[in-house]
Amino acid sequence: MKTMQQIPAKAYHSSGFMGKYQELVRREMIPYQYKVLRDEAGNAEKSGVFANFINAGKTLRGENAEPFYGMVFQDSDAGKWLEAAAYSLAAHPDEQLERECDELISLIAAAQDEDGYLDTRFTISDRDKRWTNLLEAHELYCAGHLMEGACAYFDATGKREFLDVMEKNAEHIYRRFIVEKAEGYPGHPEIELALMKMYRATGNRHCLELAEHFINCRGVDPCYYEKEKEKRDWTVWGNNPVDHDYQQNGKPVREQSDAMGHAVRAVYLYTGMADLAAETGDSELFAACRRLWESIVNRRMYITGGIGSTVHGEAFSVDYDLPSDTAYSETCAAIGLMFFASRMLENEINGEYGDIMETAFYNTVLAGIQLDGKRFFYVNPLEALPGISGVSPTHRHTLTTRPGWYACACCPPNAARLISSIGQYAYGEKGDTVFCHLYAAGDAEFSNGIRLRCETEYPYDFTVNYTVSGNGRLAVRIPARCGKYVIRKNGNNISPENKSGYVYIEISDGDTVTVELNDAPRFVYASEKVPALTGKAALCFGPMVYCFEGVDNEGDVLSLSLDTSENASVGEYDKTLLGGTRKLTAKGFRREKQSSLYSSEAPKKSPCELTAVPYALWGNRGENQMRVWLNIG
Amino acid sequence: MKTMQQIPAKAYHSSGFMGKYQELVRREMIPYQYKVLRDEAGNAEKSGVFANFINAGKTLRGENAEPFYGMVFQDSDAGKWLEAAAYSLAAHPDEQLERECDELISLIAAAQDEDGYLDTRFTISDRDKRWTNLLEAHELYCAGHLMEGACAYFDATGKREFLDVMEKNAEHIYRRFIVEKAEGYPGHPEIELALMKMYRATGNRHCLELAEHFINCRGVDPCYYEKEKEKRDWTVWGNNPVDHDYQQNGKPVREQSDAMGHAVRAVYLYTGMADLAAETGDSELFAACRRLWESIVNRRMYITGGIGSTVHGEAFSVDYDLPSDTAYSETCAAIGLMFFASRMLENEINGEYGDIMETAFYNTVLAGIQLDGKRFFYVNPLEALPGISGVSPTHRHTLTTRPGWYACACCPPNAARLISSIGQYAYGEKGDTVFCHLYAAGDAEFSNGIRLRCETEYPYDFTVNYTVSGNGRLAVRIPARCGKYVIRKNGNNISPENKSGYVYIEISDGDTVTVELNDAPRFVYASEKVPALTGKAALCFGPMVYCFEGVDNEGDVLSLSLDTSENASVGEYDKTLLGGTRKLTAKGFRREKQSSLYSSEAPKKSPCELTAVPYALWGNRGENQMRVWLNIG
Repeated sequence: MKTMQQIPAKAYHSSGFMGKYQELVRREMIPYQYKVLRDEAGNAEKSGVFANFINAGKTLRGENAEPFYGMVFQDSDAGKWLEAAAYSLAAHPDEQLERECDELISLIAAAQDEDGYLDTRFTISDRDKRWTNLLEAHELYCAGHLMEGACAYFDATGKREFLDVMEKNAEHIYRRFIVEKAEGYPGHPEIELALMKMYRATGNRHCLELAEHFINCRGVDPCYYEKEKEKRDWTVWGNNPVDHDYQQNGKPVREQSDAMGHAVRAVYLYTGMADLAAETGDSELFAACRRLWESIVNRRMYITGGIGSTVHGEAFSVDYDLPSDTAYSETCAAIGLMFFASRMLENEINGEYGDIMETAFYNTVLAGIQLDGKRFFYVNPLEALPGISGVSPTHRHTLTTRPGWYACACCPPNAARLISSIGQYAYGEKGDTVFCHLYAAGDAEFSNGIRLRCETEYPYDFTVNYTVSGNGRLAVRIPARCGKYVIRKNGNNISPENKSGYVYIEISDGDTVTVELNDAPRFVYASEKVPALTGKAALCFGPMVYCFEGVDNEGDVLSLSLDTSENASVGEYDKTLLGGTRKLTAKGFRREKQSSLYSSEAPKKSPCELTAVPYALWGNRGENQMRVWLNIG
Repeated sequence: MKTMQQIPAKAYHSSGFMGKYQELVRREMIPYQYKVLRDEAGNAEKSGVFANFINAGKTLRGENAEPFYGMVFQDSDAGKWLEAAAYSLAAHPDEQLERECDELISLIAAAQDEDGYLDTRFTISDRDKRWTNLLEAHELYCAGHLMEGACAYFDATGKREFLDVMEKNAEHIYRRFIVEKAEGYPGHPEIELALMKMYRATGNRHCLELAEHFINCRGVDPCYYEKEKEKRDWTVWGNNPVDHDYQQNGKPVREQSDAMGHAVRAVYLYTGMADLAAETGDSELFAACRRLWESIVNRRMYITGGIGSTVHGEAFSVDYDLPSDTAYSETCAAIGLMFFASRMLENEINGEYGDIMETAFYNTVLAGIQLDGKRFFYVNPLEALPGISGVSPTHRHTLTTRPGWYACACCPPNAARLISSIGQYAYGEKGDTVFCHLYAAGDAEFSNGIRLRCETEYPYDFTVNYTVSGNGRLAVRIPARCGKYVIRKNGNNISPENKSGYVYIEISDGDTVTVELNDAPRFVYASEKVPALTGKAALCFGPMVYCFEGVDNEGDVLSLSLDTSENASVGEYDKTLLGGTRKLTAKGFRREKQSSLYSSEAPKKSPCELTAVPYALWGNRGENQMRVWLNIG
């Protein structure tokens, strides 16, 4: 029995902070990404996504076709873009965008083989290589993203064509892996969570069975990929099939305890597992999810909600190995962590999930996006140092400014679909109870008939006003960081029970409920088990981690340290600063830079005022130093 | 005109601290390494060095031979071992060892081709590949090490056979690169400095010309290796010939300013350059050496004298990129830095060179060697953390305990030859002046007739007594770290001029000179330009950097910080501790470990006493945490 379910993306109409980002996605990211997919964005790397579907269709019709272009997972960008566009259409009908979507969907439909197979890489050529390289070839991954796009598009427009195409594709996969009992499981998990969406959209139990199958068989034969490799004479990247940690297949998923391997793959897998556990009430599977969750949030996660600390394999490292300067912390992995958290909420209402979801969102996910919506970080270090970052051999992956569209374009469309569907993560319901996991300004409608209007300047102000239409219960997450808070109903203070991080308030039509969080700037300390962070503090405000950039601090943050005995103070909201934000100022010290590399003279330090801005907004003012964690004293 | 010249290794008979290490080399390392080279050391990786020379000889005589075994530079281990053995023989005649050397030399002689070519890899087979891959094949590198061995053996024993073999080899190389004008320069510099030794041992000016040629032509055509690669159809490791930084060939050496690329190759090259500059008085070349020196010691060197901070290419990184936990800091690179420093002293008497030489020696070089002389670090991190070091993908190269002999066995024999010839680095002379660059207990003889007896417990005590035989001048380096010192001649305080870090004292037969350094434990701070070290301090005593190991500090050093406002104190010399050493104790704090990964509660800290031992001796008491740099406060 699910503890709650997400509302559809279309059931939320945003305003405020969320509205601003949804507008950025709608006005900038979706149109820009559309051009990219059509190879019409002049300064971006060639994508080939549209062209691949066109050429696959031509191949199927026996016409001359151009070769496949791009990465083996290129089709997935179509799925992610359509998913983002669908959510956007649901909130903002737009004939032209819908036409563009329909056109791409027609191309996708025409690229589907008679038997339901759909993947342009192995349709344009190499037909004999289909399904021979689950480890690397991403066929199930691409299918998963297209399925997610199809579900979103059906939900937004009611049009079935895309959903039908993907249901046919799901049946193809079902025949292969269930009916014909082909061995194997996805190299890059994703289809598991997508099949759960397909099951809910179509009611087709084959989708549920297939999701369950891929989850249950993973790691039962840890050597599947080795055997598969022996049978084939080709490779995509020469991946080592013996790296079971990287592949999350060292043992059956129910026996796994440590979050390991490629971080995006890991959290996509865990999301599918949690989704299935909630759907089927599988407590053993949920227990595994919980262990993996704790492994992440208690030992392997940055303060920013970033995960996957090492560039080697874009992967989780060992416990407490969380370097700031060489962090990988991929934007997509933080997005995946939000997925995982949201599915955990379907198993257990616990404020911790929402706390992590907003940490990942307000910090790593948003840091991935330039304020203009046209440039993106894949890698989100917690320290950036011109001259070292991007240059030193160990820091090549950590850039100091966001580049444009990459050849491997996973993060920008992933961020676009997440933001345009943020209502799903912000709100849920069960019976007559509506859940507010995130403070997302705007209007939300629930299938139980309740409507909420949420007004707030969160994350820069901590008063949240709900206006209720309908009767039932309102469950609002109170962040664990807020020791004190005030709840008012219709202007009167009330003291509802706080149960696992949620306050539950009886609501009647016309009620107003106000939540006032006591959120002041605070210093945060890492466990002394994290070698990179001993003796340091970070400065946070609300859900946002702040950072110190050179541009606000005389061009140098390396010589700064914090005086944590003095409270930091908050600036007024400044709409001219970084698209609108509030600065923090803290007391601290600046040390004189020694000319010699080592000296037995302690560097002279003098008191100074330090300025911090949200980590989400760093790198928007040219190349300069950035640090999240500063030394104390 | 040289400012001074090294004394021969045999002119120094060690006692005290140096004597202890020379004994370790003589009693343990040389015999152990001999067994390794003969594949008779049971637990070591197979070496094949003896076998390769035997098989090359057989091939030349038309007999059946086994294939070549090992790395392409395997022959160099013979050169390094013979060099170490030669120095040891000079100080400690040993018939059996001399017989073993002679036997190996006969094998080497028999492996030399008629035309003087000598490299078992391309003699046993692949004769047609000779000289076709200077980038990777290490023929000139192996020749260099064998030349160094030959010079040392001639010097120690007066026997010419090995020297004649290598002079014939030098003539072969001379014909190829000078007479026949073959293009190219060494992929791994080493022969340049070896040819300078050959020139001094044989007086053969072809050796000098050849050294000069390789130095002068390096980088004049930066694309030499690319052209070479196009002409060949084989590779050793698939090295990228376009990586000019790695290869130190982006521009002519006289135009280079930043120490770059593979650290051992770099300092071997710079050593050859400095040697040539001193020999020929080439001021432009010396200016380049000085720039490169400053690049290293002012911006790219660990406090331990370790260089080459990144595992990627075992190379120098960019300025100030000096991470403690992922440091590469190869033992051989620190040895090479000592070579470079000693040759700089031949150009310019400046205490800085000796300061760096002893820093590298007493810290990184000695840290490379287990106290039993049988296990070795190649990589010398400044922080070791069981659970992360050796395990995390970014820390795989940093081990917490010393392993035995490696397949790539460069460091152990390199340390052996350095230690057994330490007198060369400790003492020098020019005219009637004798130089003491290092405080090395024992007896030194100079060609000017002066003899010195040096008595000291340095580096654990800072009184150094010299007893003089002969007349002239004594020049003693005063470390820059010692602000105060006392000099006594025949019991009376004197105040000789301190000129560039050396005090010059007139000496007559029978004089005693005492140098008392004011060396107390001191905290050292890095420039705030080093991101990894901001807000931290290290604890040093004399030339030794100390470190904090878990075994002395309740099993955990991560939660420790230093109170640098209180002086550290020195324990008595304890001969039972780590083979004999002095502990330091400092005041500081221990923080309570938080159970949560991040918390806004500052961790409680309580005052405590911290114990430190010399970094050179870390990792000798099992696996445990180690940190050189601690936070302050």
